[in-house]
Amino acid sequence: MNPVAIAGIGQTPLRENWGKSLKELAGEAAFAAMYDAADERVDAIFVGNMLSGMSSGQAHLGTMLADWIGKRGAEAVKVESACSSGGSALRMGILAVASGEFENVLVVGVEKMTEVKGPDITAALATAADADWEVVHGVSFVALNALLMRRYMHEHGWQHDDFAPFSINAHANAIHNPFARFHQPLTLEGYRKAPMVSSPINLMDASPTCDGAAAVLLTRPERARKPGRPTVRILASATATDTLAVHSRKDPTWLRAAEQSVKAAYAQAGIGPEDIDLFEAHDAFSIMAALSLEACGFAERGQGPRLALDGEITPRGRIPIATRGGLKGRGHPVGATGVYQVVEAAQQLRGECGETQVENARLALTQNIGGSGATIVTHILGVE
Amino acid sequence: MNPVAIAGIGQTPLRENWGKSLKELAGEAAFAAMYDAADERVDAIFVGNMLSGMSSGQAHLGTMLADWIGKRGAEAVKVESACSSGGSALRMGILAVASGEFENVLVVGVEKMTEVKGPDITAALATAADADWEVVHGVSFVALNALLMRRYMHEHGWQHDDFAPFSINAHANAIHNPFARFHQPLTLEGYRKAPMVSSPINLMDASPTCDGAAAVLLTRPERARKPGRPTVRILASATATDTLAVHSRKDPTWLRAAEQSVKAAYAQAGIGPEDIDLFEAHDAFSIMAALSLEACGFAERGQGPRLALDGEITPRGRIPIATRGGLKGRGHPVGATGVYQVVEAAQQLRGECGETQVENARLALTQNIGGSGATIVTHILGVE
Repeated sequence: MNPVAIAGIGQTPLRENWGKSLKELAGEAAFAAMYDAADERVDAIFVGNMLSGMSSGQAHLGTMLADWIGKRGAEAVKVESACSSGGSALRMGILAVASGEFENVLVVGVEKMTEVKGPDITAALATAADADWEVVHGVSFVALNALLMRRYMHEHGWQHDDFAPFSINAHANAIHNPFARFHQPLTLEGYRKAPMVSSPINLMDASPTCDGAAAVLLTRPERARKPGRPTVRILASATATDTLAVHSRKDPTWLRAAEQSVKAAYAQAGIGPEDIDLFEAHDAFSIMAALSLEACGFAERGQGPRLALDGEITPRGRIPIATRGGLKGRGHPVGATGVYQVVEAAQQLRGECGETQVENARLALTQNIGGSGATIVTHILGVE
Repeated sequence: MNPVAIAGIGQTPLRENWGKSLKELAGEAAFAAMYDAADERVDAIFVGNMLSGMSSGQAHLGTMLADWIGKRGAEAVKVESACSSGGSALRMGILAVASGEFENVLVVGVEKMTEVKGPDITAALATAADADWEVVHGVSFVALNALLMRRYMHEHGWQHDDFAPFSINAHANAIHNPFARFHQPLTLEGYRKAPMVSSPINLMDASPTCDGAAAVLLTRPERARKPGRPTVRILASATATDTLAVHSRKDPTWLRAAEQSVKAAYAQAGIGPEDIDLFEAHDAFSIMAALSLEACGFAERGQGPRLALDGEITPRGRIPIATRGGLKGRGHPVGATGVYQVVEAAQQLRGECGETQVENARLALTQNIGGSGATIVTHILGVE
């Protein structure tokens, strides 16, 4: 397998974007990535997206994007694994370059969630869970995560307040990210007062829906280098899966697929958790941030909130997470999120993050979760 | 890139299958392929599907299937390119083995079309076309194909009757395929009398909706060999795209992407159209069969119907198509079709097709079309 590098990155602001269609958002991110790379060549396109058929009445996104950005003829396909679709599309793109089949591959994650034509957004998001065994009983996606959080609090003796630092850190970092959905700081008082969504998850435990697109142009390292900035390399890429339904897991509060996926990634890169400088975790809900930190080896089991309470997840802490706002502060356009994470990790490794820059960032971990831990896609990025 | 072979094939009957869910259909085909291969090892799963979110309220099909068939942990993802999703999933699976990333890869195409929960099936299928520029005007997918057929008849002077042999051949062959949707012969009289759907396309020009799944287990050739039967190899795999909207094409009655894709495939295999023994074409509508024959080099432009009228597309003709019934006779479960085509081509190359066996079949072409010619996925299979 050949080495793979990121030639360019691009993203759109995350908003309720009523004025732009799927293809306009995806195109904007794609052109930004090509511009950043100073390279317009695209041999193949992989699009990460979950909801387009239901939300915009549009399947066939790969070819739609190839057509829209003037790359007619280029191979194009959509990749879907619920909320980890972006990570999965990136992984397919990496495989396409690493195999030697293509030289320049564009990966775009895109989602429109505010302009839903079909079922309401809660019903659409529930398609990430098991339709036959979970959703049939009326459970929503946030309710599944609420069950996990309640159980985790019971098992490990945490109070709701103990999860506040995850959301406060996310909002604090998002303020400095011009693309982020939220630019409002969050206080403990504000966290406590937020409306309940599905007990114990309140509005400030949950990431917001939004519209947006992010893109990376992948290529061989020698083509990615640009004078005056570090070149970001893909050091590892690994996916693992677990049962789709949460109730089928022997141990629901342990992300087994995350552990399996990250262990494979650490082995590929020849490193361990102690080497990672920042971690773009899948903090769709505050409980998921805690579980991810544990599964990836940054905290003992049940001790994820301790890291947060000790301030170790901030940009100056031992393992900064959500450095650009994370899913909670930057926003969670489901099928696009995995690409946003990698775009932001690349920004950190290039030293472009200003107020929330992690000092001497050399190795970044990103982890994208589909469903309630059913699909886990992990990447490790490094600088040459 | 390493050579890739088909270790096993599997499929379900194509029916209105109210009694089986998506995962039951997909699992049935997957187990059949593993049984046929006498190999249960699965390192990664690629699922081709278009409509599951809209039709079954279920996204996340890759992981759902891994879970269902007892391959928890294995990498899994869904690949979508509208009606060519099956072909695209197969192509990703081939890339995964050819690259050396995985040794045993399961590719499953699955679709449920009769049990639609969301929009009606016509609206769901229209998501394959351009939502912003085509569907917004109220055009359905069959109407787009009707426009192409009308234009083609005008340009080349064909009458509606001239397309009958495509459907008659498809039905005649389907009778001998136990999995096929239809087992009724079609006569010219029956073709003429069929109800109009979207002029000039009548019910006998159009492939039926149905539920079903097909699967192939891909691996390295040395692992695929079994005593007493020929080993089927993947000799070529290529995708090309065109504009999503038909009206954007300079020449709507020429499948430019099919030509581009098949030329790449011929080059990979080092052969030409004269070497192909059978062609599983994407005859979603009779016009598409004609256009495919022309784009792939079997007929001069505008002369596709001539081949059919001369009997050259039957199992004893110069270029047999729809040898197991094709989309018209076997059925067109959209996202699964591309995998059915390859399963059937493998059956031909193994000599398992009885009444519709193509004599001395050594090289088979399959071509899967997404949208009205927007995405074209071509594979060439051969025997060792």
